[in-house]
Amino acid sequence: MTENGRFTRDKVLTIDTMNPTIKKVDYAVRGPIVQRAVQIEKELREGVKKPFTEVIKANIGDAHAMGQQPITFFRQVLALCCYPELLNDNMFPEDAKNRARRILQACGGSSIGSYTASQGIDCVRQDVARYIERRDDGVTCNPDNIFLTTGASDGIVTILKLLVCGEGTTRTGVLIPIPQYPLYSAALAELAAVQVNYYLNEEKCWSLDLCELERSLEEARKYCNPKVLCVINPGNPTGQVQSRQCIEDVIRFAAKENLFLMADEVYQDNVYADGCQFHSFKKVLFELGPEYSNTVELVSFHSTSKCYMGECGFRGGYMEVINMDPEVKAQLSKLVSVRLCPPVPGQAILDLVVNPPQPGEPSYNTFIKERTATLSGLAEKAKMTEEILNTAPGIRCNPVQGAMYSFPNISLPEKAIKEAKALGQAPDMIYCMKLLEETGICLVPGSGFGQKEGTYHFRMTILPPRDKLKPFQYASQHVTANWPHIPALTN
Amino acid sequence: MTENGRFTRDKVLTIDTMNPTIKKVDYAVRGPIVQRAVQIEKELREGVKKPFTEVIKANIGDAHAMGQQPITFFRQVLALCCYPELLNDNMFPEDAKNRARRILQACGGSSIGSYTASQGIDCVRQDVARYIERRDDGVTCNPDNIFLTTGASDGIVTILKLLVCGEGTTRTGVLIPIPQYPLYSAALAELAAVQVNYYLNEEKCWSLDLCELERSLEEARKYCNPKVLCVINPGNPTGQVQSRQCIEDVIRFAAKENLFLMADEVYQDNVYADGCQFHSFKKVLFELGPEYSNTVELVSFHSTSKCYMGECGFRGGYMEVINMDPEVKAQLSKLVSVRLCPPVPGQAILDLVVNPPQPGEPSYNTFIKERTATLSGLAEKAKMTEEILNTAPGIRCNPVQGAMYSFPNISLPEKAIKEAKALGQAPDMIYCMKLLEETGICLVPGSGFGQKEGTYHFRMTILPPRDKLKPFQYASQHVTANWPHIPALTN
Repeated sequence: MTENGRFTRDKVLTIDTMNPTIKKVDYAVRGPIVQRAVQIEKELREGVKKPFTEVIKANIGDAHAMGQQPITFFRQVLALCCYPELLNDNMFPEDAKNRARRILQACGGSSIGSYTASQGIDCVRQDVARYIERRDDGVTCNPDNIFLTTGASDGIVTILKLLVCGEGTTRTGVLIPIPQYPLYSAALAELAAVQVNYYLNEEKCWSLDLCELERSLEEARKYCNPKVLCVINPGNPTGQVQSRQCIEDVIRFAAKENLFLMADEVYQDNVYADGCQFHSFKKVLFELGPEYSNTVELVSFHSTSKCYMGECGFRGGYMEVINMDPEVKAQLSKLVSVRLCPPVPGQAILDLVVNPPQPGEPSYNTFIKERTATLSGLAEKAKMTEEILNTAPGIRCNPVQGAMYSFPNISLPEKAIKEAKALGQAPDMIYCMKLLEETGICLVPGSGFGQKEGTYHFRMTILPPRDKLKPFQYASQHVTANWPHIPALTN
Repeated sequence: MTENGRFTRDKVLTIDTMNPTIKKVDYAVRGPIVQRAVQIEKELREGVKKPFTEVIKANIGDAHAMGQQPITFFRQVLALCCYPELLNDNMFPEDAKNRARRILQACGGSSIGSYTASQGIDCVRQDVARYIERRDDGVTCNPDNIFLTTGASDGIVTILKLLVCGEGTTRTGVLIPIPQYPLYSAALAELAAVQVNYYLNEEKCWSLDLCELERSLEEARKYCNPKVLCVINPGNPTGQVQSRQCIEDVIRFAAKENLFLMADEVYQDNVYADGCQFHSFKKVLFELGPEYSNTVELVSFHSTSKCYMGECGFRGGYMEVINMDPEVKAQLSKLVSVRLCPPVPGQAILDLVVNPPQPGEPSYNTFIKERTATLSGLAEKAKMTEEILNTAPGIRCNPVQGAMYSFPNISLPEKAIKEAKALGQAPDMIYCMKLLEETGICLVPGSGFGQKEGTYHFRMTILPPRDKLKPFQYASQHVTANWPHIPALTN
């Protein structure tokens, strides 16, 4: 047992004996760049001298971390739910108290510390259904089709789990946009499903091109069984907003090709560009008539983490399942029961998002003021981000029509690309690392989302406040101007 | 497209085309009995006449739903974190405010609505480490080994994911106790791992028998690659508390047989029986000396859902990984990053559990009073449950030494068993369904946890308050006395 005085025993779990599918999982949004950013923050705290005084986390859509204020009403209700003694106090408005009472009454023992139904609290699901009906101009929504989730990620992974099966050329293929939000590639790797890429058209503002969908599907049928089509609208990381026509085309395509549709619509309130509007897949599906609305299988995902609320830490969300086979739905209910229930504070926040203060209620004016300020602030930042990036030489940025991200194209000199390849790293990864080291700005390289061969990008959120956005312009110019001399590439 | 005027299209996702491993997942704690209980509650609300006026949910360890009060201090801090305006108010004690300030300072933008590090907030992990050191009489704990989780279930599934690989006879086998908490069987089914049963000894108060472990392992080596040993202590659903000697034996066994140890210790504060005491696997491992403490791979799980706090709805928890290969730990960090972070309110509650009010702080006395009252109330109910069950004819119940459950043995008449089998159902499932229909008491059949062939049980929580426990005695007597005439069996 001992060897040179040290006790040794072969480990059961090593990199060689572990689950190989987990090794293939990648998630760039929290990858090496972010790990280095955390280290740098620590170094700054310890007094290490840097050319900057703080790390600016433009890598992740984390609104509150970038200074966005929570909606007062939401947090008042949450505080009341956590500590119902406050219901006896006069400091909270009556509508906040009423919402809290309603949520508490729906909880076992009137405590948000109880488990709820695995599908989520009944009255919250009813509120979600009414919200969807309002959003979709009256298209009916059955609360039985609503499943509350632990953020949208949880819902997406759960639905993919149901869908993936088969071996070899019959293995389930899942069409995802490229660039994509890397939860998709990570989940598909973990489930050993086949990732089928369709490329968004950067030249046409990252729009979804039907010919490309057709090409991708036809190709995929040679090596797997493609049966799922994922769409992210408004787009992450690409910030485009799909036109109604495009959504209609996608639905017709899914119907014709017998594909299960997954619509990631977590940025549904984040639409900034003139002439752009959010159209839900559900609504367009129903407008196409019963031939479609009675048959096409669709799941739509939403979350409390984005839009104007930005309550990422609460991990709230829901999905609506449409035209799901009843036996499969029973299996879904069973599957979600294993994890007991989504976090109840997240369910409570979701309830407030879908059932906010109404005209005439005491909190209405403040709520509208706060929501409007946040959304118009984001719209302004979207525009500013695009402008700042487009003034930097070598950077080309599409308009940020919606969501919370820009995904600009960067021209890297041949020499830099060659050297990066020699180092076995993605050129845009080295570019982002360099930018971080020199400026403290934390971005995610485009290679983490996927991009057309030979193109390079990064994702930058639009969230940092105006004064923190300023250094971006300098930073972009500095790094692009110094490309041939980027030390990390010449070390 | 139309057939008899109805639009039809083959569904993409049906019970025949869905992921077959998901179909094999089962989770009795929220199975058919509970679904029927929810229906009955609805019927009662609609005025349907029943022989009872409310459903008593003794199926799940959901303390607050059964009337247990939350700890005031915890909820005060949570309210302060949700709505920091309250920090300016005089209604909260200073120690609650200080805790809230410390948590908020550790959050991006001082908001619990921000994402945290995927492994959990740094200062919470540090508090967890100090808590473990106090609990284990000074055995050191490194915060880098602490991963915060979304309840204990999340941690258990995550670790199993890392461990499972291979095909056929090389497929990973996982030893679990029978009876077990069905999260284990559900997770193993989903991961297509091999479930290897070792049977707890009902005659010896559900103790873990080393010979049985050896038998089970030896058997398993014929058909899979057993490399993980799961232990639940205090036991769920069986309520036993392992002796220090037993834990030592298990660790030596794991070391000798090269097994990865998973210790589910979520009931570590729930120990009631005289002469019983909780010993952590970590502490015993280190007491065995460096030959063990430097080599045996162990993960221990804890949760905010049980013990005296019962905050199930917040989905808080942590795991400590010991002797994990550094490369594997990096893979674990990457894997948890895909889901961004555990719910922040749950992280906050966990911080309070591991760092409660200290002597001299204003909330100390109330905290101790509340905690003591809850734990002694549970101890009393554990005793009462055992006594009530043992006075019912045909029921034999071991002492409830710890956790929150009794798992009594029920003698069913031959005739009933035969008829159940003819119906293709587990006899104890029909028994529980009958009991629910006649009395409103919701239990989980032993078959949902696993039991020795030919024996029948149910799991009943000890949580219903004294006045709700009363009908149990009548109910048990009634159902047992009427066995030959149980309508569901003779229909």
